[in-house]
Amino acid sequence: MNTDILELVKAKQEQLVNCRRDLHKHAETAWTEFRTASIVAETLTRLGYQVAVGEEVIDAEVMMGVPSPQELINQQERAIAQGADPNWVGRMQGGKTGVMGVLHFVQPGPVVAFRFDMDANEVVEATLAEHRPWRDGFASVNAGAMHACGHDGHTAIGLTLAEILAEVKNELAGTVKLIFQPAEEGVRGAKAMVARGIVDDVDFFVGLHLGIGLQQKGTMTCNTVGFLATTKLDAVYTGVPAHAGAAPETGHNALLAAATAALNLHAISRHSQGASRINVGVLQAGTGRNVIPDKAVLKLETRGTTSEINDYMYQRALRILAAAAAMYEVKLDLSPMGGAANCDNNPILVRRLRQVAEKSNLFASILPAGNIGGSEDCTYFMERVQQQGGQAAYLMIGTELAAGHHDSRFDFDEESLVSATALLGQAAVELLRKQ
Amino acid sequence: MNTDILELVKAKQEQLVNCRRDLHKHAETAWTEFRTASIVAETLTRLGYQVAVGEEVIDAEVMMGVPSPQELINQQERAIAQGADPNWVGRMQGGKTGVMGVLHFVQPGPVVAFRFDMDANEVVEATLAEHRPWRDGFASVNAGAMHACGHDGHTAIGLTLAEILAEVKNELAGTVKLIFQPAEEGVRGAKAMVARGIVDDVDFFVGLHLGIGLQQKGTMTCNTVGFLATTKLDAVYTGVPAHAGAAPETGHNALLAAATAALNLHAISRHSQGASRINVGVLQAGTGRNVIPDKAVLKLETRGTTSEINDYMYQRALRILAAAAAMYEVKLDLSPMGGAANCDNNPILVRRLRQVAEKSNLFASILPAGNIGGSEDCTYFMERVQQQGGQAAYLMIGTELAAGHHDSRFDFDEESLVSATALLGQAAVELLRKQ
Amino acid sequence: MNTDILELVKAKQEQLVNCRRDLHKHAETAWTEFRTASIVAETLTRLGYQVAVGEEVIDAEVMMGVPSPQELINQQERAIAQGADPNWVGRMQGGKTGVMGVLHFVQPGPVVAFRFDMDANEVVEATLAEHRPWRDGFASVNAGAMHACGHDGHTAIGLTLAEILAEVKNELAGTVKLIFQPAEEGVRGAKAMVARGIVDDVDFFVGLHLGIGLQQKGTMTCNTVGFLATTKLDAVYTGVPAHAGAAPETGHNALLAAATAALNLHAISRHSQGASRINVGVLQAGTGRNVIPDKAVLKLETRGTTSEINDYMYQRALRILAAAAAMYEVKLDLSPMGGAANCDNNPILVRRLRQVAEKSNLFASILPAGNIGGSEDCTYFMERVQQQGGQAAYLMIGTELAAGHHDSRFDFDEESLVSATALLGQAAVELLRKQ
Amino acid sequence: MNTDILELVKAKQEQLVNCRRDLHKHAETAWTEFRTASIVAETLTRLGYQVAVGEEVIDAEVMMGVPSPQELINQQERAIAQGADPNWVGRMQGGKTGVMGVLHFVQPGPVVAFRFDMDANEVVEATLAEHRPWRDGFASVNAGAMHACGHDGHTAIGLTLAEILAEVKNELAGTVKLIFQPAEEGVRGAKAMVARGIVDDVDFFVGLHLGIGLQQKGTMTCNTVGFLATTKLDAVYTGVPAHAGAAPETGHNALLAAATAALNLHAISRHSQGASRINVGVLQAGTGRNVIPDKAVLKLETRGTTSEINDYMYQRALRILAAAAAMYEVKLDLSPMGGAANCDNNPILVRRLRQVAEKSNLFASILPAGNIGGSEDCTYFMERVQQQGGQAAYLMIGTELAAGHHDSRFDFDEESLVSATALLGQAAVELLRKQ
Repeated sequence: MNTDILELVKAKQEQLVNCRRDLHKHAETAWTEFRTASIVAETLTRLGYQVAVGEEVIDAEVMMGVPSPQELINQQERAIAQGADPNWVGRMQGGKTGVMGVLHFVQPGPVVAFRFDMDANEVVEATLAEHRPWRDGFASVNAGAMHACGHDGHTAIGLTLAEILAEVKNELAGTVKLIFQPAEEGVRGAKAMVARGIVDDVDFFVGLHLGIGLQQKGTMTCNTVGFLATTKLDAVYTGVPAHAGAAPETGHNALLAAATAALNLHAISRHSQGASRINVGVLQAGTGRNVIPDKAVLKLETRGTTSEINDYMYQRALRILAAAAAMYEVKLDLSPMGGAANCDNNPILVRRLRQVAEKSNLFASILPAGNIGGSEDCTYFMERVQQQGGQAAYLMIGTELAAGHHDSRFDFDEESLVSATALLGQAAVELLRKQ
Repeated sequence: MNTDILELVKAKQEQLVNCRRDLHKHAETAWTEFRTASIVAETLTRLGYQVAVGEEVIDAEVMMGVPSPQELINQQERAIAQGADPNWVGRMQGGKTGVMGVLHFVQPGPVVAFRFDMDANEVVEATLAEHRPWRDGFASVNAGAMHACGHDGHTAIGLTLAEILAEVKNELAGTVKLIFQPAEEGVRGAKAMVARGIVDDVDFFVGLHLGIGLQQKGTMTCNTVGFLATTKLDAVYTGVPAHAGAAPETGHNALLAAATAALNLHAISRHSQGASRINVGVLQAGTGRNVIPDKAVLKLETRGTTSEINDYMYQRALRILAAAAAMYEVKLDLSPMGGAANCDNNPILVRRLRQVAEKSNLFASILPAGNIGGSEDCTYFMERVQQQGGQAAYLMIGTELAAGHHDSRFDFDEESLVSATALLGQAAVELLRKQ
Repeated sequence: MNTDILELVKAKQEQLVNCRRDLHKHAETAWTEFRTASIVAETLTRLGYQVAVGEEVIDAEVMMGVPSPQELINQQERAIAQGADPNWVGRMQGGKTGVMGVLHFVQPGPVVAFRFDMDANEVVEATLAEHRPWRDGFASVNAGAMHACGHDGHTAIGLTLAEILAEVKNELAGTVKLIFQPAEEGVRGAKAMVARGIVDDVDFFVGLHLGIGLQQKGTMTCNTVGFLATTKLDAVYTGVPAHAGAAPETGHNALLAAATAALNLHAISRHSQGASRINVGVLQAGTGRNVIPDKAVLKLETRGTTSEINDYMYQRALRILAAAAAMYEVKLDLSPMGGAANCDNNPILVRRLRQVAEKSNLFASILPAGNIGGSEDCTYFMERVQQQGGQAAYLMIGTELAAGHHDSRFDFDEESLVSATALLGQAAVELLRKQ
Repeated sequence: MNTDILELVKAKQEQLVNCRRDLHKHAETAWTEFRTASIVAETLTRLGYQVAVGEEVIDAEVMMGVPSPQELINQQERAIAQGADPNWVGRMQGGKTGVMGVLHFVQPGPVVAFRFDMDANEVVEATLAEHRPWRDGFASVNAGAMHACGHDGHTAIGLTLAEILAEVKNELAGTVKLIFQPAEEGVRGAKAMVARGIVDDVDFFVGLHLGIGLQQKGTMTCNTVGFLATTKLDAVYTGVPAHAGAAPETGHNALLAAATAALNLHAISRHSQGASRINVGVLQAGTGRNVIPDKAVLKLETRGTTSEINDYMYQRALRILAAAAAMYEVKLDLSPMGGAANCDNNPILVRRLRQVAEKSNLFASILPAGNIGGSEDCTYFMERVQQQGGQAAYLMIGTELAAGHHDSRFDFDEESLVSATALLGQAAVELLRKQ
């Protein structure tokens, strides 16, 4: 049956590429994927999937790094102006742009989930002749938003997979869940979907990424490693302003609280059990030269090669941030802005997927492991599935890049869309095969 | 003759008030006083003064805190659109908006200078019924610029004084210099005029301010004390960015350099000989949460009750700023943004002016001294005059205020314009009297 | 009667000088003045004074900066070996080396107190031919203890005054209290005596110092100003040690807590109402190069030209010290080590004393005021007396010095002992005169 | 011939143990191993080795962490009093307590070196019945010096090996160098011996340690890994003292320089290529509470899993230390106090030694690798040998311990002395076998 899947995908190759290019042109950043998510919801509905969106798949309390209410309203209007269905958009208010399509097959069987992320980067896309999206007219029309990490490709793969599985549904058993996640950039979105319980019944979970650690055509791995656990945090100090010449003693200096915090945060002791990181990436404090600063904002992140190490860094950071506030008698407000776990793939699932990949003849080189070298909040899904007794794996599909991820000239080889979709289709057939 | 001067002023009272209100309506901030300065230059020329503007009275190398070239061009255009003479504006390019009018009397005698500042504040003027300028239609039409410190009144006084002195010129001996200074706010402008040598030949120098330490009608002092010496400085650190997760060791962290500098700047030891101050009022660093910050800006100021103490603070600050750069191997760029000296009035001149004030019967209460409680770059003029053997004094003329200086609802009692102008006129007659 | 007092003093001049030299030779530092205090107690008893010592005049809970129990025992033994009466020493255990002698005169009248400090400095006395105490054989025999501030003179003055007043007691009315205070160095002793209530009934209180601000023979002032309020504090951080290579994350770093505290303490904002000071004079932290330091000691002090300013500094310091502990999750132990208030003399008492001084003809120059330029815990007595409705003044008696206070070559002109004693005797007669 | 070697060792077992116990009893810390080194020199001479000591094997300029001259003289006298030959001690003045014995065999062949460290720890040895050295009367008689790391055993092994090789010299070819190094604790001694060039001609170099990573009897490895490169450094800041109340502005604060340095040192960015460490283990600053501190001492160390990472840490540390000095205008004096490299064993030599170990039947478990988990300056020898084209390996010989290394109750199983000596003897035979 594998050959059939590849044939089905090839028949849709043009549609697959067009879909990717349409999404690329209408790039939408985290929590504002109103048009993308509407298209996904509409397509899944048309294909016969049960579709859940908005509050059904997103726990608003757990959303991190959400734009301002006004910005969200502006983006809803923008999306509608770009063709989004107002009904779907209405169900996604507040940035709840997640979508899940569920297809129950006739025979009972396992629950298999595939996850795709949909959001673009806050990057101004290059306007250069050698940049294909610009040259061929599908560069982003949304200023400051660009698909510079391939999530347009991921979403197109997911929608094509949805179509394939609908076509072969009579040959399958069990249930498939296709999860379309917002806000992977900044690792902000997965936690809110996991919190809704949507993967609590999943037996096999598969995530994937194009490129990243594998930037050669024809390579792939079913065993992605090196996920860095991370926490993103904003800290705001609010003190008391005062005239710096006339009455400095009446001020409570938020700038010095932030400066002390920054220094001591970077001085958190190394951890003997693995690599750790901390970075205060932004510090903005004060209003005028002659005013004791009453406001300071810090944007920071911690990382660790294990969730334990990241948690060590994060707990120490919280302690330092709070103590710096106490030191200067200023108020501290904390906003979690993102997070991801460390996670290992289940070896048995890795082996099954690898056999699918080998049989597929789609890849010249199947690597035993590949390092993602960063953070991915797909790990929250994986962690939850594993906690509930299921298995999870994260694939990387090699592709040649025009420029690195997050670069304004980023682009990938669209042939990889076909092989990635076919592989996922074959994997679904393997995992959901009728007995 | 004193009575005469008062009569002359009273005859021009309406014109004096109208002038002040016109300037108020077209408020112009530091180094962009193109319209104000053009009116001053034009008026002085019409009255028979020798007029020097632009490079003739401003040393471009010593200008501090100048807006960007583009902003200056925008402001020139704005001024011309608001009626400024393009010829005068053309001579003030680059923000060189200082003006001096010189009148030589027939008989030889001393050189007497009066100094008036012309610039408005970066304040958005109140739009409230109880705010007279708004109610009476002379609130600022220039967004973000407002005369909230009375310099509109100072300029109107100066122009009326110019007219009075031209009228009585035959009764006077020596030379009068009327100096109209830009950019007193932020103490940025005086130094560049002093550097041009325009007060090097001055025997008697008089500065003044409405309100400030004297907020009661009918009060005044010829002996203003408490000038704080100050230096304003911007420091920019430029490091090397790096990915905070993947290669933190390759970064040179400008944010930490700035944080270390801020802490250690505030820790500069107190001075046993008088009060000192330091404030880092603004710190802005970094671009993204996961990037080692390669840029940081500090806006700071030092102060001291004497120029020596301010200099002690400033020299230590420079040392700390440079060392923090060395510590993180980042580049440091410093921009002096303003400065003022401490200065004492000459007692003999104070006594002469006080006698003029007493004889004038214009003031119910003449105080032996009044505290300005802040910094004024008029001190640079005074210091230079004194270094060259001349005498200097700084007057405060009491006036009732609608709200404090720099407040968006600031306004003063326009009757004080008459008494201030008359006093200066009488002082000029006293100092320039034919023998 | 004034002449009589001077004659009485002159008759005891040799004894006065010998007493001072004996005390100088047996210098005793704070809280270990067992021999000195025993001699004082014995002498006062012999002269007919009611004598209170130990717990009667010292509140142990309020003693600050007390040596270790073992050190106190060693010092008691040393004192006895140097001739101290074991009975008196026994009543002063624990360092409670204060003494008060009270003499009630037959007629009722005011309560007048004179206060003398007795302790030496932790200074190794010079062994130089030009140093008179060494040359003449009365240099300190107690290593590391030296009377380098003249308290030996103060005590000798007090004992001679005691004798004079006993001799003229029939001519006096009211009560005299002669207070001999330990531990003025480090401003550690006065508070514990004040807490015992011994000056609560005092109508007139007089303190004095030789030299300090007046280093010319024949000068004096009854109006000493410039007392700096101060607080002395020891802070100890206790963390958790760890191997710096093998398990740094398990440590809680007391050294970094102390370093952060030190920096931020020095960065406490200046006060607009007067001069303030802070100094971390000592920081000792850590044990071995490769161990995360689990111990750090800070010795610090705050000062202010008013008690309010000192309190501002002290409260901010406490907040910073506590926050630095929280930041590194280390324990903080605080020990107050000394303190003094700011205090103004009562003008009426100053005037009365000044008249005594003028009548005495003992001084060539009586200054309206003199600056002590430092801290003195006599201010605690003065403050209490004033709070209870009494009057207080602090005299400075000029004397020529061989070297500055606290210098190992310090010595003063012993003729000043005579004039100081005579002045105090005459002042006592003035204040306690029979009606 | 292997059996023979083991027999030879067994015949000397009692002497071997006695030698170890004698050295244990007369424990000598770094650079004061005068008695130990004298015994080594004397024994090697007696056995026919060419013996080099003092300046011949130690470059005084490269010695790190040397005691004071007075302390060295005291220790020489102590050593002589404990039986050291004054002639040898005389040649080791200044702490140059290294010894090398060289034996040239008749036939030409490779140069093989074995290295043994001789110094004890700065530990007060336990005086407990369950502590065998104490119970059996060979606990250290030198207060504060204890063999708590087994170097007494290493030296005894080296001397017994010297005897064995002398006995079988006719069966060997080439040259053997037996290197006895002082001051391994604190990684202070190897560099000074390497700098003398004594291993520049070595073809095969073998180092060893008892215990450490292998604390089970019968285990061993020929492939010790995990050497942490490290640098030990003392930094002294010298500023200008000042009275903290009267003239704080005249001080240059060494304490704040040190505090700033400490914080920023700990904030050095992590390295992406491996683990790094930094620790300021000791900070001592200031003299008195009311004196601006003019002196501060920091004792610190850097580490890295590679020499490159350690060098990154060290270079950044130097930059920070210097900048903190500049910031407070204080002088900085740096003293390198120790160092070690990271080093990999040569696989070919490891394999040869492993075959010897297998053939010997002395070990139940020969591990492919063992982690030393710390720093060893033997790496300097190894690095140099490898740079010159030779091969190096470092063995660990398992032994049961009474308590951990550097613990006051440390002791090891003396049977391991036999197997270690026999193994080295057999290794020498393998490497120096006549062709």
